[in-house]
Amino acid sequence: MKVIFLGSGGSVPTKDRGLPAVLVEYLNELFLFDCGEGTLRQLMIYSAKNGKNKGKNDGKNKQEKINFMNINKIFITHFHADHIGGLIGIINTMNFLGRNKVLEIYGGKGLNNIIKNLPIPKDAMQFVKIYEILGGDVIEGEGYKFVSFKTIHTPESLGFVFEEKEKRKFLKEKAIALGIPEGKLYSNLQRGESINFNGKIINPDSVLSKPIKGRKIVYTGDTTPCENTVKFANDCDVLIHDSTYSDADINKISDHGHSTALQAAETAKQAKAKSLFLIHISQRYADSKILEDEAKKVFENSCVVSDFMSVQISPSPEKRISAS
Amino acid sequence: MKVIFLGSGGSVPTKDRGLPAVLVEYLNELFLFDCGEGTLRQLMIYSAKNGKNKGKNDGKNKQEKINFMNINKIFITHFHADHIGGLIGIINTMNFLGRNKVLEIYGGKGLNNIIKNLPIPKDAMQFVKIYEILGGDVIEGEGYKFVSFKTIHTPESLGFVFEEKEKRKFLKEKAIALGIPEGKLYSNLQRGESINFNGKIINPDSVLSKPIKGRKIVYTGDTTPCENTVKFANDCDVLIHDSTYSDADINKISDHGHSTALQAAETAKQAKAKSLFLIHISQRYADSKILEDEAKKVFENSCVVSDFMSVQISPSPEKRISAS
Repeated sequence: MKVIFLGSGGSVPTKDRGLPAVLVEYLNELFLFDCGEGTLRQLMIYSAKNGKNKGKNDGKNKQEKINFMNINKIFITHFHADHIGGLIGIINTMNFLGRNKVLEIYGGKGLNNIIKNLPIPKDAMQFVKIYEILGGDVIEGEGYKFVSFKTIHTPESLGFVFEEKEKRKFLKEKAIALGIPEGKLYSNLQRGESINFNGKIINPDSVLSKPIKGRKIVYTGDTTPCENTVKFANDCDVLIHDSTYSDADINKISDHGHSTALQAAETAKQAKAKSLFLIHISQRYADSKILEDEAKKVFENSCVVSDFMSVQISPSPEKRISAS
Repeated sequence: MKVIFLGSGGSVPTKDRGLPAVLVEYLNELFLFDCGEGTLRQLMIYSAKNGKNKGKNDGKNKQEKINFMNINKIFITHFHADHIGGLIGIINTMNFLGRNKVLEIYGGKGLNNIIKNLPIPKDAMQFVKIYEILGGDVIEGEGYKFVSFKTIHTPESLGFVFEEKEKRKFLKEKAIALGIPEGKLYSNLQRGESINFNGKIINPDSVLSKPIKGRKIVYTGDTTPCENTVKFANDCDVLIHDSTYSDADINKISDHGHSTALQAAETAKQAKAKSLFLIHISQRYADSKILEDEAKKVFENSCVVSDFMSVQISPSPEKRISAS
């Protein structure tokens, strides 16, 4: 599972930072948090740079490029232009390339109206399904769920949690020790079913590990620091938090819809997050080290996002996070 | 006067090509032809690379970066997403930065509806003036005019001519020879007025050069080859023409709304253009040399546009064009 930052800037793009877009690669699916102007091209640039297959070759030297056509769900935190400007391009291009598969787009009240008014041909809208949701809504998927939570930015602004369901590992050595032959019985036990083996009832607990907590990532979108983030980001592996400003500048700024790096770090600490990624960096910080230093004073495992940075999140509870 | 290509791709962006946007820098004004997704960021990247003052220093080491806030007129050739996707970002950012100055946007029938439905706050729309125009319409400016012409792509698609008014040079040596003192009389003659000097009527023709043809550039937008382009691009300095495909591929392509490099070259030749710039390059041509070679067989002064390429057009009739 990988998080790929396609755009890390806020409000106005700069030569170095595109507008907000965070891609999550999970098994064979792609999910997108926000879709700032330029997202599709950022994805193509990332894919061209990183598309080479790294070892999991199928023998045909096939490249596993990231294919934006595999994006199945897009989550929009709110409707400011820097978070939705890329939808026109993504939807039109999917249509241009003949997409039929449903593309689900989730966001707060008003999303339907926003998307229906975009310059997108009617036939493109045949594969787009729009879901207006509220804070606390749950979207269930195959082995995972998304949960939305209300943030403090606009009346409809939302943050999103991606949470994998907990898993139990099949301990083959225990099954072998019990003399169970490979095959259907293994599958039953893996699914958590008891089996009857040689007249003896074998409980799945005998061959399954303790539950392993699923991976959890949280994306706030734009928000001032808020209790909801602390609550919903509790014990997450990756917290991606608005960090528009440095706390040193907060008195100069009349805008109160955003967070500083320090505030993001305090939230990460309170939420007991494992790692913090600072995003939505204002154009005023050509050098963002000041933001990272500020956050690290409160929460050591902080990192300012740059475009095309990615974070690998392993299922192993011991060593989950590795950024590159 | 400079033409700056901010996006040279067609339909789908690639890692190397953004979507159509051609900036014209003329004296203190900026004009934009089309505004594909990512235009604002392309402009910022161009500006960061090329913004250093080259000699015309005002003594304060001020950098003369291209400032997108100086864009006064945007001309939209048609409403396909790849030509308008960047409007949301440009308009919102101008508003974010407190623009009051009018931004004129020109395009065919339907433009008003398209723009009014974009996710742009109402206060931003206070500085946006939308003009729906037809082929043949003329927009007069200070020392120049734009003329639109109907192209063959969509019912409302248009191409645009930028044409500088012809000028006459003031020949100071002739005025000196006639004994006229510098000052008000010079100004009168420069404006084309006769003067009474020492009881003698002096006609401006005595001190003005023959009329020098103004600079002329033409942007077709997307179109199949058409007679209108030949007519309106007649004797232009720069023809920027749709060149989506190679003629070698034309039989494989069901899309007939575009031109090949060869067709663009034939049009340039018929129009007696001075130079041809091929744009709207399909993603299938990662190497666009095939397109340039194809065009050069018919029209030698052809060039495939790449992003951030610029063309300087000097007022001198002898050496007008220099690309970089």
